[in-house]
Amino acid sequence: MSRMLLALAGAAMITTGVVAQKAALKLEPIERQMPAYIQERLSAEDRVLFDKLMRVGLESAWSLVTAEGYPQNFINELTPLKSNMRMVGRARTMRYLPNRKDVREKLYSAGPQLNYKSAEEAQPGDVLVFDAGGETRAGVSGGVTTVRFLVRGGAGLVIDGAMRDVPELEAMPIQTYMRRGHASSVSPIMMSVDYQVPVRIGSVTVIPGDILVGDTTGILVIPAAIAEKVADTALEHDDQEDFQRQLLLKGESIYDVYPMNAATRKRYEEYRKQKR
Amino acid sequence: MSRMLLALAGAAMITTGVVAQKAALKLEPIERQMPAYIQERLSAEDRVLFDKLMRVGLESAWSLVTAEGYPQNFINELTPLKSNMRMVGRARTMRYLPNRKDVREKLYSAGPQLNYKSAEEAQPGDVLVFDAGGETRAGVSGGVTTVRFLVRGGAGLVIDGAMRDVPELEAMPIQTYMRRGHASSVSPIMMSVDYQVPVRIGSVTVIPGDILVGDTTGILVIPAAIAEKVADTALEHDDQEDFQRQLLLKGESIYDVYPMNAATRKRYEEYRKQKR
Amino acid sequence: MSRMLLALAGAAMITTGVVAQKAALKLEPIERQMPAYIQERLSAEDRVLFDKLMRVGLESAWSLVTAEGYPQNFINELTPLKSNMRMVGRARTMRYLPNRKDVREKLYSAGPQLNYKSAEEAQPGDVLVFDAGGETRAGVSGGVTTVRFLVRGGAGLVIDGAMRDVPELEAMPIQTYMRRGHASSVSPIMMSVDYQVPVRIGSVTVIPGDILVGDTTGILVIPAAIAEKVADTALEHDDQEDFQRQLLLKGESIYDVYPMNAATRKRYEEYRKQKR
Amino acid sequence: MSRMLLALAGAAMITTGVVAQKAALKLEPIERQMPAYIQERLSAEDRVLFDKLMRVGLESAWSLVTAEGYPQNFINELTPLKSNMRMVGRARTMRYLPNRKDVREKLYSAGPQLNYKSAEEAQPGDVLVFDAGGETRAGVSGGVTTVRFLVRGGAGLVIDGAMRDVPELEAMPIQTYMRRGHASSVSPIMMSVDYQVPVRIGSVTVIPGDILVGDTTGILVIPAAIAEKVADTALEHDDQEDFQRQLLLKGESIYDVYPMNAATRKRYEEYRKQKR
Amino acid sequence: MSRMLLALAGAAMITTGVVAQKAALKLEPIERQMPAYIQERLSAEDRVLFDKLMRVGLESAWSLVTAEGYPQNFINELTPLKSNMRMVGRARTMRYLPNRKDVREKLYSAGPQLNYKSAEEAQPGDVLVFDAGGETRAGVSGGVTTVRFLVRGGAGLVIDGAMRDVPELEAMPIQTYMRRGHASSVSPIMMSVDYQVPVRIGSVTVIPGDILVGDTTGILVIPAAIAEKVADTALEHDDQEDFQRQLLLKGESIYDVYPMNAATRKRYEEYRKQKR
Amino acid sequence: MSRMLLALAGAAMITTGVVAQKAALKLEPIERQMPAYIQERLSAEDRVLFDKLMRVGLESAWSLVTAEGYPQNFINELTPLKSNMRMVGRARTMRYLPNRKDVREKLYSAGPQLNYKSAEEAQPGDVLVFDAGGETRAGVSGGVTTVRFLVRGGAGLVIDGAMRDVPELEAMPIQTYMRRGHASSVSPIMMSVDYQVPVRIGSVTVIPGDILVGDTTGILVIPAAIAEKVADTALEHDDQEDFQRQLLLKGESIYDVYPMNAATRKRYEEYRKQKR
Repeated sequence: MSRMLLALAGAAMITTGVVAQKAALKLEPIERQMPAYIQERLSAEDRVLFDKLMRVGLESAWSLVTAEGYPQNFINELTPLKSNMRMVGRARTMRYLPNRKDVREKLYSAGPQLNYKSAEEAQPGDVLVFDAGGETRAGVSGGVTTVRFLVRGGAGLVIDGAMRDVPELEAMPIQTYMRRGHASSVSPIMMSVDYQVPVRIGSVTVIPGDILVGDTTGILVIPAAIAEKVADTALEHDDQEDFQRQLLLKGESIYDVYPMNAATRKRYEEYRKQKR
Repeated sequence: MSRMLLALAGAAMITTGVVAQKAALKLEPIERQMPAYIQERLSAEDRVLFDKLMRVGLESAWSLVTAEGYPQNFINELTPLKSNMRMVGRARTMRYLPNRKDVREKLYSAGPQLNYKSAEEAQPGDVLVFDAGGETRAGVSGGVTTVRFLVRGGAGLVIDGAMRDVPELEAMPIQTYMRRGHASSVSPIMMSVDYQVPVRIGSVTVIPGDILVGDTTGILVIPAAIAEKVADTALEHDDQEDFQRQLLLKGESIYDVYPMNAATRKRYEEYRKQKR
Repeated sequence: MSRMLLALAGAAMITTGVVAQKAALKLEPIERQMPAYIQERLSAEDRVLFDKLMRVGLESAWSLVTAEGYPQNFINELTPLKSNMRMVGRARTMRYLPNRKDVREKLYSAGPQLNYKSAEEAQPGDVLVFDAGGETRAGVSGGVTTVRFLVRGGAGLVIDGAMRDVPELEAMPIQTYMRRGHASSVSPIMMSVDYQVPVRIGSVTVIPGDILVGDTTGILVIPAAIAEKVADTALEHDDQEDFQRQLLLKGESIYDVYPMNAATRKRYEEYRKQKR
Repeated sequence: MSRMLLALAGAAMITTGVVAQKAALKLEPIERQMPAYIQERLSAEDRVLFDKLMRVGLESAWSLVTAEGYPQNFINELTPLKSNMRMVGRARTMRYLPNRKDVREKLYSAGPQLNYKSAEEAQPGDVLVFDAGGETRAGVSGGVTTVRFLVRGGAGLVIDGAMRDVPELEAMPIQTYMRRGHASSVSPIMMSVDYQVPVRIGSVTVIPGDILVGDTTGILVIPAAIAEKVADTALEHDDQEDFQRQLLLKGESIYDVYPMNAATRKRYEEYRKQKR
Repeated sequence: MSRMLLALAGAAMITTGVVAQKAALKLEPIERQMPAYIQERLSAEDRVLFDKLMRVGLESAWSLVTAEGYPQNFINELTPLKSNMRMVGRARTMRYLPNRKDVREKLYSAGPQLNYKSAEEAQPGDVLVFDAGGETRAGVSGGVTTVRFLVRGGAGLVIDGAMRDVPELEAMPIQTYMRRGHASSVSPIMMSVDYQVPVRIGSVTVIPGDILVGDTTGILVIPAAIAEKVADTALEHDDQEDFQRQLLLKGESIYDVYPMNAATRKRYEEYRKQKR
Repeated sequence: MSRMLLALAGAAMITTGVVAQKAALKLEPIERQMPAYIQERLSAEDRVLFDKLMRVGLESAWSLVTAEGYPQNFINELTPLKSNMRMVGRARTMRYLPNRKDVREKLYSAGPQLNYKSAEEAQPGDVLVFDAGGETRAGVSGGVTTVRFLVRGGAGLVIDGAMRDVPELEAMPIQTYMRRGHASSVSPIMMSVDYQVPVRIGSVTVIPGDILVGDTTGILVIPAAIAEKVADTALEHDDQEDFQRQLLLKGESIYDVYPMNAATRKRYEEYRKQKR
């Protein structure tokens, strides 16, 4: 369980006293755990970073990514297949375009389609990112290929388009973001064109190596160079927000607490000292 | 459990005999219970009214609201975060507009943003209604502010736009209707402009004090002046529909039952007499 | 549990050895069972066919339907109410048009509205298919009528439009595909015009008697004349894909396995021989 | 030139005196003339009716059609190819559906595609109405077929979908309403299914024989049985509105004129007497 | 004719020499003249300001409005009825909401509908701004009311929704921006609720008194307080761009000219000196 | 004037006799002339090819492009600024993506933005093709840059997004296809990323060097390798269609003429012989 939720649970208990014999607010914990299978396969550095990003508040992280000069880096046009699963991983990108014989023949004589290639070459903690331009009349990949990706330690799928085998994807221990499902293979409509290039997902540019953090709110795209800084600073901010939640659950006024006035800030500094 | 569902369960048992050794129809009960935390904080009058509206058929209530002269009062453009939770509450409205410096400076020097103000001033059983014009590139409010709203006895959120902290909202014991999530704060795109004025949600006008009744079908907007009448009459109608469901589950023809022919109506009147 | 999923579970166990002390991939089984109530009421032929279609891969079936000359037969514009429920059934179609007094009076003096008629005349295993042209400002049918349909052995609902009583539909043991819910009856906006004619659902033509197979990926529309052939051939193909999944779960390269190279194909033939 | 516009021009001249030496309002006349080629081929009755409908105010006609019980009979989802051309004619309807081999083979062995058939069978003053379900990835008909239709005295085209040869259609002396153009023939995507049946265009039901009146505002669908009554009454109403326009152009207040107060109504009755 | 276009014409003549005997580039002048009828009725200050804004480049003005802190002030979601007519005027705003009996009765007993009121109270140079929330199933106003507005010196119409009598509006000497036409009066769907309040048009907030400048690119919304400054500075910038256009038409490289390198800037300063 | 239209005019004259004293069909000629300024700057080969493609039927060309294996090569999602102007030219492509600081800094330190570069490097007969992913909240280029492009002999603009300075573009002698206008420069939203790579326009892949042929129906994308073959064969087919139009204008039945029956085909062969 994330620290934030523990704090909420604690606050709820305190609240019980306040509201006397009445029913207490009960806020259910949010599970934010990386699947063990993936976690164990990560590099040591990634394990530390990804663990922080599993717990971080998406909103505080967004504020920091924006402050670093990336205000357009949030994807909310796709739907996650599962509502209670956070995704953290590193972008491996592909770009699909509508079919045309000349381009297709050249590309496919040069090597395998990119859903195969990306599944085969995936590193633990990778997220496959398919830019299909929002096309939903064919799936860009499906269940069997994703089994290979899973075995390689794949951490998620992000498709600006459609996927096949949706129930099989739902049964897998990773998150999938997409527009719709479709039983059609990609071939009648599209072809994979570019591998590991900048792509557009919703209204965001994703480049290879970006760190993606997603939940039901959407997906934050963090440039790799600032991911650690964002994670650390956001967790500090989350800690403060957890404190604020506690005060609110005790019945204090939002005007004193969020944002904090001078008195509340002083109490927060006390609380921080005691925690250390 | 609502009376309607009990009736269904009863009918299902009767049906067993009819279909002999074959598998029986089993209709799972629909939970329609106001969270205790909110219910206990309601005024006596609201507790009675809201309890009826937790059980009422949205469709029979819609027919009555329409008959009273309000045929456009149903919202189905937003998505509920939870599928098995009915929302009943009283509208507290806000209107958001796209940013512009001059208006924004005037408004925000005059008082706090309206998501704070509405959370702080909320009365038990209130539903916060945010008219953001369908804009989904920024969230109008988020988790911490909603904790304050919850503590105040808030009963639901209706946003024609986006919210932050969606998993936190999902973990709360109230329903949220919205278009999408977004991790962005409201500031880069919009500003709160009007408080407790008529607003547009989907294609419906909601005014402060309206009684909102929502489930996965959508949200019925009941003018306060007719809410009690609608609730009482609808429950009577529901009772009749439960009787009709029982007959259908016994295998009777829909032509005799729904609508009722003379013979069926007579049986219904018998049934009503016995119930009293 | 379907055979495919059993195979996956078996493969997962084998995999345990490969990844040593690390966490094993666990793929959750997908439930694909026809409700007993419906199954028992089917004709003998349908029971065999529908049982196969409950287990078949939607994607392999799609490939075969396409190969037979039907490349446009997949619906993915509607949303299923339940995520873990496959629908198999036979289309009983209706066409709705916007209201106009002259047509409406003629039609409704000639007989009952088509949602009543179709519920009353439904045969076990039928799926009611409502072409409402995507109109979502009124529901074409609702809970009570669907109770009659259920009692008759109805197997599913497909609505290019909206339905009333969504929570009641969610509580029923059949799948519903639709665009949105609406509490309004159909009367203020639309009228039922045609019964058992070709209709458009999403971008697919559905004719009476078509076999519909749906899950969360969407709905495959199989012309009745080829349904058995499609089911049998697809199951064979699924068997091969299960074998391929096993190899992938053991850590083999996708380049050898999917599609199969000569060596893998040989192993597959061995495996097939042993299975018999 | 229509009588209404003559009235406006007259009013403008009067206004000149009022505004003294300042520039006068000049309202350009709207041309509303049926192409001579069509007009001469109409039956005597149609010539009288269609002539009235070329001049009638679409808005007053709409009010009357609504008052007769047809409030949903206005199409505004399609775009006219020409901005200054009114269309009046009688609906000849066709319904297209997405391709499927079985239906297609049966239909096309039974007779020619419906765009050919409708062009060949068209009567003077007919408007071809193609319900293609909004599909714009293929044109349902094109230039050559429309030449045949023109020669037959065709008066307009209404397509809920796309057409080929748009510049050729623009060069023809009739109006075309559609969603987009497309160079593709209909064959790869759709097939013509029904002839002279009720169809859906935008959100309106059109039946064979309906009288269609269109300009840049959209298309009013008038049931044939009330067309003459609507035309006559609307022209009377237009006459009154022309009188009101004259008063407004003289500088009178809208509060006295539109709607008319008692004094203005008296003057209008005077004016009517003198006109006779 | 605007100065910019004169410059272009001049440049084109110069170019003739360069391209020798080949055909010369001919850039047609853009007409940007306020209708005399309106211009003469404006206050002296408005006449000067509006004249500048008839000539200003919308793009340079946009840059300055953005630089002043208003980056969201451009409307491009509506369609102008005429392609060659610039609109300049002062916003008079109205807000429409979906009908509901209680609100409607209260409002309409208090005074006339706002399309009448705004036409009657309009000052010369006003632009009526109707926020109908994008609703296109009914027109918010029509021809007769707009005649009154015209007589009052009205300068334009901006409707986030639909209008009646579109051909009549096309024949008027002012520009209209809207989504679609509709023959329906506003009454069956909407009601006018607020007068002279901030409204949303497309994704822009418009407040009463804003200066609107529109052409086929869209509508720039200039807060009144900065309109003069924006006009003057933009015209200077346009002058520079005209100089740059001249150089490009002579065949110079864009790399030297746009933006200007040091040598080009020197030549521009020379040119400015000579012009004075 | 194109040969096709001449044929139509001729046919109309013949028709006069047939319909006796009645009004004759008059089909206005479609102008299809390349601007002299561009034509003179083309290479000899291009002049011949482009001249054919100015006259060719877009629909017959589409059929041939499809027959060569390119059924997805027609763009109809964009709007042409002028209705009576055909565009023929060679694609010079650019790809834009949403802004992000890291990518943007790297790209823009490496060279000028691609709208400048493409204008500067354009060859006579080029069409600039901007893939902005449909984004309409900023213009990718504008008037001044397009002047440079024009001087270089540019033949058209195709933007899956928006442009600035729309009236200036309308005044230029080339066609522009786009989604909307916007006064904003590209900088706040997007950056140019790739030059002369395959791009997506609507639902079509365009590669550098493709021959684009557009009119109000849309834009046909012809791979360069087959452009000449397509042009020649399509013109032959057009010749046959012109013959068919003549017969139809004479009043012959479409069943005999389109497609041609044996007798008609014989007459066509006669006609062909005489023409040579």
